[in-house]
Amino acid sequence: MSRYLIDRYQSLEAYVPGEQPRDMQYVKLNTNESPYPPAPGVVEAVQAEAGRLQLYSDPVCVELRDALAARYGVKRENVFVSNGSDDILNFAFMAFGGPRAYFPDISYGFYPVYAGLHGLEAHPIPLRQDFSIDPVDYMVLDGFIAIANPNAPTGMALEIGQIEDILRANPDHVVLIDEAYVDFGAESCVRLTAKYDNLLVVQTFSKSRSMAGARLGFAIANEGLIADLEKIKFSTNPYSINRMTLAAGLATLKADDVCTANCRRVVDTREVTVDRLRQMGFEVLPSKANFVFARHPHSGGGFLYRQLKARGVLVRHFDSPRIKDFLRITIGTPEQMDVLCAALKHILEAE
Amino acid sequence: MSRYLIDRYQSLEAYVPGEQPRDMQYVKLNTNESPYPPAPGVVEAVQAEAGRLQLYSDPVCVELRDALAARYGVKRENVFVSNGSDDILNFAFMAFGGPRAYFPDISYGFYPVYAGLHGLEAHPIPLRQDFSIDPVDYMVLDGFIAIANPNAPTGMALEIGQIEDILRANPDHVVLIDEAYVDFGAESCVRLTAKYDNLLVVQTFSKSRSMAGARLGFAIANEGLIADLEKIKFSTNPYSINRMTLAAGLATLKADDVCTANCRRVVDTREVTVDRLRQMGFEVLPSKANFVFARHPHSGGGFLYRQLKARGVLVRHFDSPRIKDFLRITIGTPEQMDVLCAALKHILEAE
Repeated sequence: MSRYLIDRYQSLEAYVPGEQPRDMQYVKLNTNESPYPPAPGVVEAVQAEAGRLQLYSDPVCVELRDALAARYGVKRENVFVSNGSDDILNFAFMAFGGPRAYFPDISYGFYPVYAGLHGLEAHPIPLRQDFSIDPVDYMVLDGFIAIANPNAPTGMALEIGQIEDILRANPDHVVLIDEAYVDFGAESCVRLTAKYDNLLVVQTFSKSRSMAGARLGFAIANEGLIADLEKIKFSTNPYSINRMTLAAGLATLKADDVCTANCRRVVDTREVTVDRLRQMGFEVLPSKANFVFARHPHSGGGFLYRQLKARGVLVRHFDSPRIKDFLRITIGTPEQMDVLCAALKHILEAE
Repeated sequence: MSRYLIDRYQSLEAYVPGEQPRDMQYVKLNTNESPYPPAPGVVEAVQAEAGRLQLYSDPVCVELRDALAARYGVKRENVFVSNGSDDILNFAFMAFGGPRAYFPDISYGFYPVYAGLHGLEAHPIPLRQDFSIDPVDYMVLDGFIAIANPNAPTGMALEIGQIEDILRANPDHVVLIDEAYVDFGAESCVRLTAKYDNLLVVQTFSKSRSMAGARLGFAIANEGLIADLEKIKFSTNPYSINRMTLAAGLATLKADDVCTANCRRVVDTREVTVDRLRQMGFEVLPSKANFVFARHPHSGGGFLYRQLKARGVLVRHFDSPRIKDFLRITIGTPEQMDVLCAALKHILEAE
């Protein structure tokens, strides 16, 4: 830290992304990436753009927004796109987050970071004992609300009716529903954006569309909220999406059936993996995402994480009190899950 | 605007990028893009990454930072990279900008936007009558200082000794030198970063390296300032640079001689263009950038801009009092400048 950093950011705790070790090749099940490559057409579309990188990208992102609007049955004015959904979450906390922000105590680790960054009073709301969100806790709050649905790292989802209750109970505050993992079995509340002007739905191309490395997120909402997000984008970094990512996003939307099929494969693999983990004695939370959150009655999460890493399998462990016994395991290919399960079996048997 | 946008952003005036009209093909001399394609190797490098977009990019950007460090004779800890230099300017105003920000009254239009965004008291300092920056005006200020060198839209540059005087006179405040256009003939003050811990040099791959559409900016400074910028990045959008742009940046640095040759061609074309404009009666400010700023004694800037646009040539006109008579003209290929000069000749003769 330099002596020039202004006071309000000195005690800021930055987000810690999942590790990306470079010492060896791991079976990488720690950052919820898709095990499947980008959609057909992406490489060609990107290649065409790479030859004209000397020209700025379209800051208004007309084509991509129109394609998303068509895909989700809304208008261009209801769609915002930016450099990954983190970018959009940041803008949302910034634009709509004063002076209080409410979110589950166990959820995406970036929510408290954004609250801190923008000087908001953060109110983490404890999950129930079974790690589910109790909608009753979100009725008539006096601030911005952010809920991941499905939630991370639990993977558990709310019903759309429960979200609607929350929207109705908080008409004077924006309710952000972070649907990063929605395509793996939960129900999207995009259609509610036509009815509730306080609903901001955020999604990403990172998971279900195999584009984590391209950085592309989008939001769907009433056009007033979208106009606000555009204003923040044009006051920070108007050309925030590069030409190649715009092209990759468009090509991916054209092959949406492939992405849907990939999601189905991930869901199938998840269900098989859940069974196998339970057979080994794990408690596995009911997941609607491309990961599972599981704990073993006899082995701690930190121990299993380290043992797996030593065997070349990376999963994610959060060293925080309520969830320190858990592992968050990304669903990879069936072959990757075989490696995981075999490694876990060895570790548990060796104990 | 929605009724949810928090008060402090309601009166915010966003930046207005140069127009990107889609109604016809223009000779595009309005956004200071390079007329030359990306460096050899870029397309291949990007193509390789496009096939593995399902994996996150490296948030620490180790290889690119090391390559930049080698290129500029500094260490990795002295290099920050992000999603375009606008992203870095935003972070700098955010991290180092309290409570006052000083910058020239005629300069990059984003500086006052960033000041507004982060709630800073903006102090625009008037340029001299001849549109140059007077270093004396920047001695012992009580806040953050941002100076574009060469300045935009004037194209005029300070000497490195003049910048050193400013650094020495403001040891308790960060001085940001925005070197977006430095490779076209001005002297970089990167080497001063070893001596002054308050110096933040910001550069971009957009102009001299033909990568405007890829979004890649970098900063060089003392490691304390870089650590602060990293903290802000990891508190907003850690994976801010996608895989394809990282690869394009690395490939471009490997072909730095090509970029240097392109810059030389632009400088040569600029000098020829300046002569031709002067022959037509234009006053042209002495430019060290890839654009010229020129006015004609008999024809207003708005008039010439509109006439040129009608003839298929886009330049930039700023409708603000002191510079409304000027055109900012990007230096393109010699052929593009022929089209510009012919069009101007017709317009001036028709009057």
